[in-house]
Amino acid sequence: MSQNHTSRIVIAPEPGGPEALKLVERTLAPAGPGEVLIKVAASGVNRPDVFERQGLYPPPQGAPEGLGLEVSGHVIEAGAGVEGLAEGDAVVALVAGGGYGDIARAPAPCVLPAPAGLNIEHAAGLPETVFTVWSNVFDRAGLKPGEALLVHGGASGIGTTAIQMAKAHGARVFATAGDAAKCDLCRRLGADSVFNYKSEDWAAGVKEAGGADVILDMVGGDYVQKNLSCLNRDGRLVMIAFLQGSRVEVDLMGLMLKRQTITGSTLRARPVEEKGAIARAVHATVWPWIEAGKVDPHIDTLFPLDEVREAHARMDSGEHAGKILLRP
Amino acid sequence: MSQNHTSRIVIAPEPGGPEALKLVERTLAPAGPGEVLIKVAASGVNRPDVFERQGLYPPPQGAPEGLGLEVSGHVIEAGAGVEGLAEGDAVVALVAGGGYGDIARAPAPCVLPAPAGLNIEHAAGLPETVFTVWSNVFDRAGLKPGEALLVHGGASGIGTTAIQMAKAHGARVFATAGDAAKCDLCRRLGADSVFNYKSEDWAAGVKEAGGADVILDMVGGDYVQKNLSCLNRDGRLVMIAFLQGSRVEVDLMGLMLKRQTITGSTLRARPVEEKGAIARAVHATVWPWIEAGKVDPHIDTLFPLDEVREAHARMDSGEHAGKILLRP
Repeated sequence: MSQNHTSRIVIAPEPGGPEALKLVERTLAPAGPGEVLIKVAASGVNRPDVFERQGLYPPPQGAPEGLGLEVSGHVIEAGAGVEGLAEGDAVVALVAGGGYGDIARAPAPCVLPAPAGLNIEHAAGLPETVFTVWSNVFDRAGLKPGEALLVHGGASGIGTTAIQMAKAHGARVFATAGDAAKCDLCRRLGADSVFNYKSEDWAAGVKEAGGADVILDMVGGDYVQKNLSCLNRDGRLVMIAFLQGSRVEVDLMGLMLKRQTITGSTLRARPVEEKGAIARAVHATVWPWIEAGKVDPHIDTLFPLDEVREAHARMDSGEHAGKILLRP
Repeated sequence: MSQNHTSRIVIAPEPGGPEALKLVERTLAPAGPGEVLIKVAASGVNRPDVFERQGLYPPPQGAPEGLGLEVSGHVIEAGAGVEGLAEGDAVVALVAGGGYGDIARAPAPCVLPAPAGLNIEHAAGLPETVFTVWSNVFDRAGLKPGEALLVHGGASGIGTTAIQMAKAHGARVFATAGDAAKCDLCRRLGADSVFNYKSEDWAAGVKEAGGADVILDMVGGDYVQKNLSCLNRDGRLVMIAFLQGSRVEVDLMGLMLKRQTITGSTLRARPVEEKGAIARAVHATVWPWIEAGKVDPHIDTLFPLDEVREAHARMDSGEHAGKILLRP
């Protein structure tokens, strides 16, 4: 029998720093048709959550209330028409909101079985980064084995995932990171060449090492032109965020002469069917890599849910490497 | 028996205006392996020829001497290893240079039979525009039937060809042009909505009419941002020239949120194998459209070869609509 559940969620009623976050209690409606309720084991903290806290990234229409885009846990209720998911199943899910909490609501197509052999809390670090890397680097940019990927923010959640997925796929990997320890992490995860962007000319280094065929960039600003300068003929630059701004000055002559492509996408706004298609592709290709130990979510810290402000402060600091998680 | 031939060619020893062009005579070597010599019926004048005359577009290594990128005519000699082409065949060809003249040298993969039922001189207007539109709008941007194409310079050689090919393919077509007569021409060729860029806000008009899925742009400059503003979700912007400059300021946020793509290419620098692949695709798909009368090269003027300066002056004036040809 479906019933109403009580869950804490995290909201930011007024935009601001980590102190803007408030933990509040809500009564959740039962799982609707095609929906699943998940008792959360852990929730991932992602950069878009920071933008949402700052009031820069309004949630899409119809999203569950509260911050948080990914969870791991166990199914407690499956709505009408949901097939293949039953109470007690260990799962991970991409959610459109409300991931920070005790119970999360997910559309069934965005729910996948937790990979075998992986700590259920750590599994919370998978959906947002794996789905993002898959849909941008593999699907949109079509990275092929033998090609070279350059990933910026190599020590971030996205970066650590992209390095491992690209290596598992048989690509060469360049990465940038902001200090020696993060550069070391990128190398340990398999990156072939790593550049400290604070002290090295990464664009020249990548060019000298043969150039990149695909670049995954969340920086923007003056990185866009530099990316184009070290992107090979027929290379693809994919923008997934603009930490240094989206208004850029670029010379597109080289793009035309070298037949390069600039594109980009965001995950959250995509319709459930598209996320479901990504989930199926990820399940078929990336889950086996995870279960073989080739891709492992690199966890930075696991905070209790009531320390969500500290978790956000750590992300704001930029000192983290890999994923920040919350445990309810 | 192969023999040396004498041919006039057109060169620009010093960069400049149309007066920089000189008609000189050269002795041509026999057709080498994989090459064909063509007795020229007519040669097409293209925008890249103007850039070459101005010293802005150096010919690629190994290109035949002289201006001119496309010809029609008859095979007079086929080199070793050339199959399927024999003396007397009526053909059109994309050449890497030297197209303005009495005899042109073409790599066999870039030679196609002249379409049945088309005036052999008019056929000279096909290769550069048809290959360019095919490789950018159809191959690179993947225009699908039912999608909407926006083509700038709708009355240019590229524009008139793009309008007809897109309509033959079952797409909707928006075009821009610079005066009422040119706008009328675009409409007669099949464009569904045409905007006079001097008096109308084409970006707003296209957006209001449902937006474009593919945009073919040779303008650049502030057109780039305007293009992005009327490009649909998952839309593709393809740059093939930068008449108003390639250094642009753009906001890429919309590109990411709408999953748009900016790309581009040039034809001349591509290796012969790639041009050959385009030729085969064009022969299979576009030749039947031409032979069915759905695509017809729109000819502006046909100048005698010794009036090549007048031909270039006409292209410089921007008053032409469709193709300018030279007859030796």
